[in-house]
Amino acid sequence: MRIVNVGICGIGTVGSGVFNVLSRNLTEINSRANCQINISQIACRKDNPDIDATSTHVTRDIFDVAKNPDINIVVELIGGTTIAYELVMMALKHGKHVVTANKALIAEHGMSIFEEAESRGLLVCFEAAVAGGIPIIKSLREGLSANRINWLAGIINGTTNFILSEMDAKGREFSDVLAEAQMKGYAEADPTFDVEGIDASHKLAILASIAFGMPLSLDGLFTDGITKLEPQDVSYARELGYAIKHLGIARKSLSGVELRVHPTLVPEQCLIAGVNDVSNAVMVNADSVGTTLFYGPGAGSEPTASAVIADIVDVARTMDSYPDSWVPPLGIPSQSLQSLSIMNIENVETGFYIRFSALDKPGVLSTVTTIMGDAGISIEAIIQREQPAGESYVNVIILTNVTKEKYLDEAVKHIEELDTVRGYVNFIRVEYLDQA
Amino acid sequence: MRIVNVGICGIGTVGSGVFNVLSRNLTEINSRANCQINISQIACRKDNPDIDATSTHVTRDIFDVAKNPDINIVVELIGGTTIAYELVMMALKHGKHVVTANKALIAEHGMSIFEEAESRGLLVCFEAAVAGGIPIIKSLREGLSANRINWLAGIINGTTNFILSEMDAKGREFSDVLAEAQMKGYAEADPTFDVEGIDASHKLAILASIAFGMPLSLDGLFTDGITKLEPQDVSYARELGYAIKHLGIARKSLSGVELRVHPTLVPEQCLIAGVNDVSNAVMVNADSVGTTLFYGPGAGSEPTASAVIADIVDVARTMDSYPDSWVPPLGIPSQSLQSLSIMNIENVETGFYIRFSALDKPGVLSTVTTIMGDAGISIEAIIQREQPAGESYVNVIILTNVTKEKYLDEAVKHIEELDTVRGYVNFIRVEYLDQA
Repeated sequence: MRIVNVGICGIGTVGSGVFNVLSRNLTEINSRANCQINISQIACRKDNPDIDATSTHVTRDIFDVAKNPDINIVVELIGGTTIAYELVMMALKHGKHVVTANKALIAEHGMSIFEEAESRGLLVCFEAAVAGGIPIIKSLREGLSANRINWLAGIINGTTNFILSEMDAKGREFSDVLAEAQMKGYAEADPTFDVEGIDASHKLAILASIAFGMPLSLDGLFTDGITKLEPQDVSYARELGYAIKHLGIARKSLSGVELRVHPTLVPEQCLIAGVNDVSNAVMVNADSVGTTLFYGPGAGSEPTASAVIADIVDVARTMDSYPDSWVPPLGIPSQSLQSLSIMNIENVETGFYIRFSALDKPGVLSTVTTIMGDAGISIEAIIQREQPAGESYVNVIILTNVTKEKYLDEAVKHIEELDTVRGYVNFIRVEYLDQA
Repeated sequence: MRIVNVGICGIGTVGSGVFNVLSRNLTEINSRANCQINISQIACRKDNPDIDATSTHVTRDIFDVAKNPDINIVVELIGGTTIAYELVMMALKHGKHVVTANKALIAEHGMSIFEEAESRGLLVCFEAAVAGGIPIIKSLREGLSANRINWLAGIINGTTNFILSEMDAKGREFSDVLAEAQMKGYAEADPTFDVEGIDASHKLAILASIAFGMPLSLDGLFTDGITKLEPQDVSYARELGYAIKHLGIARKSLSGVELRVHPTLVPEQCLIAGVNDVSNAVMVNADSVGTTLFYGPGAGSEPTASAVIADIVDVARTMDSYPDSWVPPLGIPSQSLQSLSIMNIENVETGFYIRFSALDKPGVLSTVTTIMGDAGISIEAIIQREQPAGESYVNVIILTNVTKEKYLDEAVKHIEELDTVRGYVNFIRVEYLDQA
């Protein structure tokens, strides 16, 4: 039987998962890969007590793996975009296929990596880069290959979903849940990447590129995090029949492509509204199939390893066949990719949830609704809720119909100028997601 | 560019969808298949006004397609297991790859079809046979290839899910909703295949075979339909925090493999409990990835076409590469498949929902709970609800902990023998599905 040698660079959370799952399920995995997969080298800065690497060749220099003439597939699990990029390019130059779980690397350097791989007749796979163990890349590239994708919307960061789920279920403050998430290891010491939506934006860029057949790019992608969300917004949203989720949304229309990551109100009856804790889920709406949803764990050692190994199996099974029969990294040959114009957020149309503090006296609401009407915005619902005792101000919450963001911005500016309104107008976008 | 000629046999609901989607999205599809896909022949008993086949060669004899020397891929969409089987075998004998949406055919004759295909170096694909547009076969065979599958549970028949959703949402009777489903075209004039669970059992056999690496077989598969369900059970289940879904369940344990299709109580907070109407969803629990869920439309012209065309693209892209690089029909080479013992339903362990009619007098419940205790069954909840005014009997509803079905059977027999109990004891199985 053919032997395929794999070198793993980085043996942290994901790397140890890959090592352990490959070792545990090797018989089944070999049978699916139609060859014998062999971990022939591991590169790591220090040993990981979670794995038994006694019979594996260990090196401290990751570049050893990229240069090792015996190795067929280099698995990049070191993270980051500088050394990881060097490593991947060196591996390709030495004729190795590459499997990576690195979303930042693919989002930022994907095009040059794919070009190098293509010119050398090599495979680059990155299923684990988006939504952990969920086979969403394969489903988009192959499972839905009959379709034109209209839009996709995903909970693609487990940390923010955990925080929002806790704020929702227990009325807790953002900062309080973040501290717990850091303690539990769900969030990094510097949580910026997760809570500001940067990690999600990398994943969204990858999904959108495959969905719409356009080159990978972060340009024009709108990103907003969850740091400004208040428990009262989560609870007012519930009162109105919505859950707040941090979504990555990509939509293609005649006006261009929307690419945006932000907190979003979604109707409670949507399946995705019920996706809680560190779970991920991606909804895909396409012209032939309609709406589908892919749910599963978005992170963690073995769930991520599941995706990395699925890539290793695909590469091992097909690496000796004709490159023409391979699925290209973004689903279509790179010369067929087409740049599409990314819409400015001000031209994007969504519903809006608005909250502000207004004097509790007659006429205020009528002034506000007149401003909305003048901006061409229809109102779906208004609720007014008292603030703590003794306050002469109330919270006004308005749900609008779908409108362009620039009209909303205009209305917000006028409302903030009113003497009867105190402070800023907070708003959160609303998506109906075909209620699926 | 390579040209791949496709012949479509049967141009009804699914066939017309395949024709129309292929025509509409041909540029994108060709780009993904890395070749030019051409519908070169259609076989149908009569023309379908939903398609414009003016520039396609139409024959009334499906076997023409199987013998047509120009055709590379035969798409079988005629249904049934006799002529369809002949057609597929003839197509293989003439060196054609085969794509089919026919679950009955694959469940009943899959092994001999795969054997024939393998011996001739041909591909047989059947993504559309299970859960319509959801790429569940690909996800199981390839996306989760790192895993040992522990269990899967799916809503894999849209008709029964529509009926149950309506009974649940509106308290309607089974027969009443069935009549509506027939009128809407969701159910056949003879609904037996759907409502008795036969269609679901075919799909479950296919999923289980891939999940556990065993030869396809319907032997030992336990099947129960939804015809005996009463609106009161649906509403009592809700009162207890459960939805009733018609699930196909396959589970592998040290005791053997469970294969069963039956109405099932699932906790409301499970995502799958929120899958309504004609939608399908399959949950998969596996050792590395944990729990995943795949949701989408389980039937319909274009959703099913989406899966058929995904198969056509896979075949067209890879048919000229080495057969060793192909994914075998059941995920592993046929010589690696292993027969596993299928458990008798009496040895399967689940929770149970029980309902019976008992005299409303002291001591009855204590007798019943003693019987349950003697059978070794723990009780999770008991509720007692009045029957229509003037009745001296009440409905007793009991939710048990997980127990072997034979112990439940024993307890049920004793309860039915009680003078204070009228008629039969109705029971429905309960699954917790890891609450995912």
